[in-house]
Amino acid sequence: MKNLVGRPGSVSGLILRLGQCAFAAAAIGVMVSAFGFARFTAFCYLIASMGLQVLWSFGLACLDIYALTRKRDLQNPVLVSLFVVGDWVTATLTLAAACSSAGIMVLYSRDLAFCKHNPHLPCNKFQMSIAFAFITWAFTAISSHVMFWILLASV
Amino acid sequence: MKNLVGRPGSVSGLILRLGQCAFAAAAIGVMVSAFGFARFTAFCYLIASMGLQVLWSFGLACLDIYALTRKRDLQNPVLVSLFVVGDWVTATLTLAAACSSAGIMVLYSRDLAFCKHNPHLPCNKFQMSIAFAFITWAFTAISSHVMFWILLASV
Repeated sequence: MKNLVGRPGSVSGLILRLGQCAFAAAAIGVMVSAFGFARFTAFCYLIASMGLQVLWSFGLACLDIYALTRKRDLQNPVLVSLFVVGDWVTATLTLAAACSSAGIMVLYSRDLAFCKHNPHLPCNKFQMSIAFAFITWAFTAISSHVMFWILLASV
Repeated sequence: MKNLVGRPGSVSGLILRLGQCAFAAAAIGVMVSAFGFARFTAFCYLIASMGLQVLWSFGLACLDIYALTRKRDLQNPVLVSLFVVGDWVTATLTLAAACSSAGIMVLYSRDLAFCKHNPHLPCNKFQMSIAFAFITWAFTAISSHVMFWILLASV
């Protein structure tokens, strides 16, 4: 378990955290650039949730960089427990935000065909932002599972 | 960990499974009785997801009854691993379904105020069904965490 891909304090772990951070930031950027997003509560919640994800992932990426440069080991049970809880909470919030926005997008683009009949609606941007949010969730779920396995191995 | 509330093969575990089953069935029942639900993809997905939850929880409830009547122990690592994976998958699908439906409901009742201006829309039934789906998710999340702790203790 010491060599698990994505473990804290490793290059793969750092890449995973930077990936989460980048996709969450991209989701915020694309959503903010879409005209009229503020009328949708779900899209505002997506931005808030992605903001929290950026903070969490950026913090852990900094911790990974510190561990890599100072050659410190981050795999002690207390720290890993904290990572498991944090990843679980952020993953749940990210999934909730992505799904609630996706629900609206499916309604607008498929069920009501609003996107086809209202070309001024920036549906492509909404969809792109939601796709980024789902990618962020997938990365966070991977992190969460890696932490879970490390915790399982460390007890 | 052998006496954890909600563990498989215990009365509390059985109550938790029956609770999941009952609330998921109630979510399906209320949604199906709401006129016009089929026009919304998210609401159809909610029914499908709750259907899967009913099957999973009912199966595990039967296993709990079997373990209780025959005094069998269900806490071996292979079975608990299976329960952890199953609970994680069903909890994720349930949360996704509840959130996508909740996104639409918030849009209709708050952002666009459709529910106020279209009294023929069965918004109350939609909301009740979504609330039941969230309760089902909460119960499944509890089960999932209990299984996780048992797995952690058994390795």
